[in-house]
Amino acid sequence: MITEISDMITVVKNKKPLVLHMTNYVTACDCANVTLCVGGLPIMASEVEDAMDMVKIASALILNIGTPDSELVDSMIKVGKLANDLNIPIVLDPVGIRKGSYRMKLVDDILSDVKISVIKGNGGEISVMTDMNGEVVGVDTVRGPSDNIFAVKKLAKTTGAVVAMTGETDYVSDGTRVYILSNGNPVMGRIVGTGCMTSSVVGCYIGALGVSVDTVSAALSIFSIAGEMAINNSSGPGMFKSALMDSLNNLTIFDVETHIRVRRL
Amino acid sequence: MITEISDMITVVKNKKPLVLHMTNYVTACDCANVTLCVGGLPIMASEVEDAMDMVKIASALILNIGTPDSELVDSMIKVGKLANDLNIPIVLDPVGIRKGSYRMKLVDDILSDVKISVIKGNGGEISVMTDMNGEVVGVDTVRGPSDNIFAVKKLAKTTGAVVAMTGETDYVSDGTRVYILSNGNPVMGRIVGTGCMTSSVVGCYIGALGVSVDTVSAALSIFSIAGEMAINNSSGPGMFKSALMDSLNNLTIFDVETHIRVRRL
Amino acid sequence: MITEISDMITVVKNKKPLVLHMTNYVTACDCANVTLCVGGLPIMASEVEDAMDMVKIASALILNIGTPDSELVDSMIKVGKLANDLNIPIVLDPVGIRKGSYRMKLVDDILSDVKISVIKGNGGEISVMTDMNGEVVGVDTVRGPSDNIFAVKKLAKTTGAVVAMTGETDYVSDGTRVYILSNGNPVMGRIVGTGCMTSSVVGCYIGALGVSVDTVSAALSIFSIAGEMAINNSSGPGMFKSALMDSLNNLTIFDVETHIRVRRL
Repeated sequence: MITEISDMITVVKNKKPLVLHMTNYVTACDCANVTLCVGGLPIMASEVEDAMDMVKIASALILNIGTPDSELVDSMIKVGKLANDLNIPIVLDPVGIRKGSYRMKLVDDILSDVKISVIKGNGGEISVMTDMNGEVVGVDTVRGPSDNIFAVKKLAKTTGAVVAMTGETDYVSDGTRVYILSNGNPVMGRIVGTGCMTSSVVGCYIGALGVSVDTVSAALSIFSIAGEMAINNSSGPGMFKSALMDSLNNLTIFDVETHIRVRRL
Repeated sequence: MITEISDMITVVKNKKPLVLHMTNYVTACDCANVTLCVGGLPIMASEVEDAMDMVKIASALILNIGTPDSELVDSMIKVGKLANDLNIPIVLDPVGIRKGSYRMKLVDDILSDVKISVIKGNGGEISVMTDMNGEVVGVDTVRGPSDNIFAVKKLAKTTGAVVAMTGETDYVSDGTRVYILSNGNPVMGRIVGTGCMTSSVVGCYIGALGVSVDTVSAALSIFSIAGEMAINNSSGPGMFKSALMDSLNNLTIFDVETHIRVRRL
Repeated sequence: MITEISDMITVVKNKKPLVLHMTNYVTACDCANVTLCVGGLPIMASEVEDAMDMVKIASALILNIGTPDSELVDSMIKVGKLANDLNIPIVLDPVGIRKGSYRMKLVDDILSDVKISVIKGNGGEISVMTDMNGEVVGVDTVRGPSDNIFAVKKLAKTTGAVVAMTGETDYVSDGTRVYILSNGNPVMGRIVGTGCMTSSVVGCYIGALGVSVDTVSAALSIFSIAGEMAINNSSGPGMFKSALMDSLNNLTIFDVETHIRVRRL
């Protein structure tokens, strides 16, 4: 696993995957910078005509509903369908989804029409989506590791996507295999957009390396390891954001080898 | 006053108020990060359906017209009315308003339909709004402290809102009481968005503690004190923004006690 | 040339040009901060009514198609025409334009209706635009210095604009004169938005000093010199962005004199 990740870091930097983001205006700049840090090339587009142009040259597509509107989601669906036709992998980030909410309806619409390669969310978001697919594992009931493992496996099976649930511990599954990742530190939750940035890194990795539990887990691991290393150079969340990008940009194989904590079920 | 502010800092961090921002795309990320720094939880929304969902679980609502469009302002009015019904306090930030301008019309529309809890603007903006309400205190005539005191008291009386005018000295009034705050430093005017960020901090404080001259003044004071402390860790405006967030995040009761400069009329 | 630039820095800071940006949501915050760093005052607007208001008090207008949509471009054209009537100079930044793309159509629409003062793009973008104007110098063929010089001169002649092509070496021409600028460092390409920020600095300089090869070259030079100086205070791209703004804000005449590398053809 460790050797594989070290190789992956190099391959992503060499391949320079173009990652098209249809995303929110809050974290767009940070996502673009993180994409550059790991070796990708970011493009952001909102209008359907522009995004249809760009997806043709993209290696991966990010759909992030952090500041959604119905027109944007209509565009996401059209561009997503084209990405499906072109075999371009798609990351869906269901930011802030809640039961019975407008955002849940939007995610439902996307899932009805577009085949998603990776769903990345926090514990609450993944739980809501699991429930949406007919299961009784809701926000309140997902707590222990066994519930989290159940949730990611179930959502992966019902959607056909690799599912990544992020938190103090991350869980990644394709419905069969499950990786449990224990890197990162609490300060990552003290800045806005670490979830969105994680999706960008996932986009770079699956764009350059293909979709699998391994490539998604690798993306989550390197982002979290960069977060661990950044904390030493930070006096608070403001400096931490800059330090996180620096660590991510400068991450070495030695850093990965000495920090990684992955367990495979 | 000082003991109260120290208590307030703790209460806000414990209550974790959810602050819904309908705001501009320029400073949205910094506003979200500042919200986290003082202990709140930020959500940004533009589409009316999304914001209507979110306001139901919010502790405060920010309406900021930094990059306005008519559809966004229509949404602000609908969401503002619902916030009024739900007794959720609202901060209005009339960014860049000028006499006879499109933005002034938008602010007028909002004030006609929505009861605002706090109006936060710089000297020019508050002066324009005072004039808009039938007074002769325009941009050019508000200069000395007595004019500023007159303006905030008058606008508070005509709108029923607590009014905060920011600048080298800040003035806060509910129409009767006036607080004069003298913290801050000039570098805060050398980065974009300190005004918007102030509104976010106000949103956290009134969301957790209720609307009053005291809670609004406390929010302004802690933001300005954080700005004073940040200057020692900065080589220019770029570093200052990060340092400001760190200071705000790390602010202690001792910091407040040793720095605060408040005068009550 | 050096003495002129030193004077220009002071004049821009004294005149405080108001620079209206109709731009993308990804780099808007960084562009606004860079504008403040060099002494300008930034305003961002998207809605046509708002931008029509603002352009009347602006010293320069930036049109940047980094996240375009057809409504925004319609607004850009209306506001651009008014800027032409008011003799307010306009910078066009054709972000991400490619042959036959939607963005190329948008740029074509803008150029048909609006007289542009400065076109600023990277090597690929300027090459595409040169081709669009009937020349055979496409993306693939512009490589050596002589091709770059040909491209900027040609595009300047066909459009009547001063053309700035940025890269490891920058080329600036009004169709007759050509300046070759060799400042900057590769890390500037490792953060998002240095191109957009360059346009903001150009906006400040032409807004305060008028449009010429000299003022545009001065803007590019001071931004690149700030980039060179910032690298010493950076551990990676995250810190570099803050350091770049600090250097730009603090840039002295001595810094310019000891760093500038300009050659006039």
